[in-house]
Amino acid sequence: MDAISVIRTKRDGGALSPEQIDWVIDAYTRGAVADEQMSALAMAILLNGMDRAEIARWTAAMIASGERMDFSSLPRPTADKHSTGGVGDKITLPLAPLVAACGAAVPQLSGRGLGHTGGTLDKLESIPGWRALLSNAEMLDVLGEAGAVICAAGDGLAPADKKLYALRDVTGTVEAIPLIASSIMSKKIAEGTGSLVLDVKVGSGAFMKNRDDAAELARTMVGLGTDHGVRTVALLTDMSTPLGRTAGNALEVRESVEVLAGGGPADVVELTLALAREMLTAAGLPDADPAKALADGSAMDHWRRMITAQGGDPDAELPTARERHVVPAPATGVLSRLDAYAVGVAAWRLGAGRARKEDPVQAGAGVELHAKPGETVREGEPLLTLHTDTPEAFDYALTALDGAVEVGGAFTPAPIVLDRVD
Amino acid sequence: MDAISVIRTKRDGGALSPEQIDWVIDAYTRGAVADEQMSALAMAILLNGMDRAEIARWTAAMIASGERMDFSSLPRPTADKHSTGGVGDKITLPLAPLVAACGAAVPQLSGRGLGHTGGTLDKLESIPGWRALLSNAEMLDVLGEAGAVICAAGDGLAPADKKLYALRDVTGTVEAIPLIASSIMSKKIAEGTGSLVLDVKVGSGAFMKNRDDAAELARTMVGLGTDHGVRTVALLTDMSTPLGRTAGNALEVRESVEVLAGGGPADVVELTLALAREMLTAAGLPDADPAKALADGSAMDHWRRMITAQGGDPDAELPTARERHVVPAPATGVLSRLDAYAVGVAAWRLGAGRARKEDPVQAGAGVELHAKPGETVREGEPLLTLHTDTPEAFDYALTALDGAVEVGGAFTPAPIVLDRVD
Repeated sequence: MDAISVIRTKRDGGALSPEQIDWVIDAYTRGAVADEQMSALAMAILLNGMDRAEIARWTAAMIASGERMDFSSLPRPTADKHSTGGVGDKITLPLAPLVAACGAAVPQLSGRGLGHTGGTLDKLESIPGWRALLSNAEMLDVLGEAGAVICAAGDGLAPADKKLYALRDVTGTVEAIPLIASSIMSKKIAEGTGSLVLDVKVGSGAFMKNRDDAAELARTMVGLGTDHGVRTVALLTDMSTPLGRTAGNALEVRESVEVLAGGGPADVVELTLALAREMLTAAGLPDADPAKALADGSAMDHWRRMITAQGGDPDAELPTARERHVVPAPATGVLSRLDAYAVGVAAWRLGAGRARKEDPVQAGAGVELHAKPGETVREGEPLLTLHTDTPEAFDYALTALDGAVEVGGAFTPAPIVLDRVD
Repeated sequence: MDAISVIRTKRDGGALSPEQIDWVIDAYTRGAVADEQMSALAMAILLNGMDRAEIARWTAAMIASGERMDFSSLPRPTADKHSTGGVGDKITLPLAPLVAACGAAVPQLSGRGLGHTGGTLDKLESIPGWRALLSNAEMLDVLGEAGAVICAAGDGLAPADKKLYALRDVTGTVEAIPLIASSIMSKKIAEGTGSLVLDVKVGSGAFMKNRDDAAELARTMVGLGTDHGVRTVALLTDMSTPLGRTAGNALEVRESVEVLAGGGPADVVELTLALAREMLTAAGLPDADPAKALADGSAMDHWRRMITAQGGDPDAELPTARERHVVPAPATGVLSRLDAYAVGVAAWRLGAGRARKEDPVQAGAGVELHAKPGETVREGEPLLTLHTDTPEAFDYALTALDGAVEVGGAFTPAPIVLDRVD
């Protein structure tokens, strides 16, 4: 077995054998296959694809590269959710404690933002004292205390994926559906959840710009989960406009707390409830009523316990940015478009996101939306407020917003949930 | 400009802009584009292709990465030849002094063997004392003395190509026609020859297994040469069976000297004369008569001067291998097939070739053919003799020859020269 023959097989349009896949993932993790060989293979996979059997084996080999967690000793069924990433996508924050309040255990391993998409851990870190890094024992303690835990994945889970993801990031090979699907699912399966709901975003602010690609990714991931004995469902959801009325770290925590308090933007509430119902059904709790848990304060109660158990103060004042800049509506009429990608890039440039994994983020930075598509705006009145600690970033953020706003164009209300794959 | 955007352009089927090409070649040579980025780009080029303008710019950028030689001060026109590599392809050895004897100057920068194909420098190094490494001044001295010089290319010529070729070799990206063409032509153009004849091999023992690919490579290279002001012609020649009756280093030198002495195998003589006529015509000497120069000893005279000027002793006894093994003909009848690739692999395994650039080769090792396709053989009489210093290699070499010999099958005499591209 050697790297060149594996690369040639895929380059020439063949299917990789189980032995080739096991060998190349293991050898790459050990350093016996070089980065320049793996990137050539990744490009060949991106351009020539992999069939379902190859993707399944690739995922299994990535899981086998590290340790697996096991929550089967918990007294409650486990449920997990993964979003492919979007702008203003704070859903995990209200969702995890909500589902915990309805009787499931939610061990939620989350990530950080990269580029125009935000990261759940970055958002929660704007809460004074809150810690993302927990030992396995601490994670179980928080789960016992609050029913939900949101923390960083340890280094031991799917190390092959960690190495491969960093490589794909610098070699133009991120956008390969087999590699995206196996990357997400290897971590989620290694994490040991009993059921999983995938939120596959579609639209300008998402990784998948069109619905066909998103549906293919969703089907691939649901197949992988099912093959590994994890009850898996995917929702395709809209990401052409930001979720809710904020994109940023502390800004999104504030909005999430509003949802937990029974208020908040309608789209965030709708998607949170839709995902909660899917998670509870997949976890074997189809009769739970998440709307009631939002209304009666039990979801908020679980949130406070979860934040407290991870060192955070749920009552602390959240950081705000030092400087603001208001963008007025350009005309009077119905706001017909507010582009998610543009808002995501603006928030990133204001300091809410990062260009490289090691960059810091600003807790207070981001974009606040004073109107959502479908609402009427008046020329000159505030449409967006930009927040940053680094006001020199305003101009750069504003260029990202060029052409992102349309008033008076055609507007058709679109549902949040576009499709369901199981 | 950044590597990822260049990779994405080609990955998504676009054409690279001149600026992108200049930037990526320069940045790769400087180390600012990483190996894993260049290998992903090479795979995207292999799978998505490049158009003529891209290939021309890519070649120009590789030339610009290093120095250029200049032979315009020589009193004679320069002519050069490049073969894409085959089994038993010793043609450069008799050809260079022959063309010199006919009035052209032949500055022949050559390479070493890799895999199943032999290398001109490895062959000549079996002559005691002969040196492949010459300074530019020494090269001009040998040219003045003998009219021809065969030596290794200096490190200063197209360093981008040197780095990229080594990368392609380990990443399954060798077989991309745009990259093969630009690799060959960047070195040949930087070398400063006025005219160039390409011997593009087709068949099992060649890089290009089928005629369409070979013709495309030939057209691409002729176009590149012409665009850079080098009179360039290509011959497509057969490599389904080995050239001549030997594949190895000293074995091929001995056969080349037979040709220079007016004898030698008919196919080697025919191809040597065909290439000589093309080189002389391209160099502006269409009336020269290479057959006469072989017959009257003037080609041999130039060979002796060339070998002597490079430190070799043309009268020295050539090394022979310590052990021999005879392979008998399996049946009586017309030898209808003797596969070039199989013979090349056998010679390589016997020690004539190398698996990696840094491996040594055996001067005496190789395969001797006692019959060529079209000749009648008798069952049990010697068909091949294997030569090696490492007799433990015999079994491994014999497995390469499984199925390589056919007696009594359909046989159609095929011409050596299949086509001409100018």
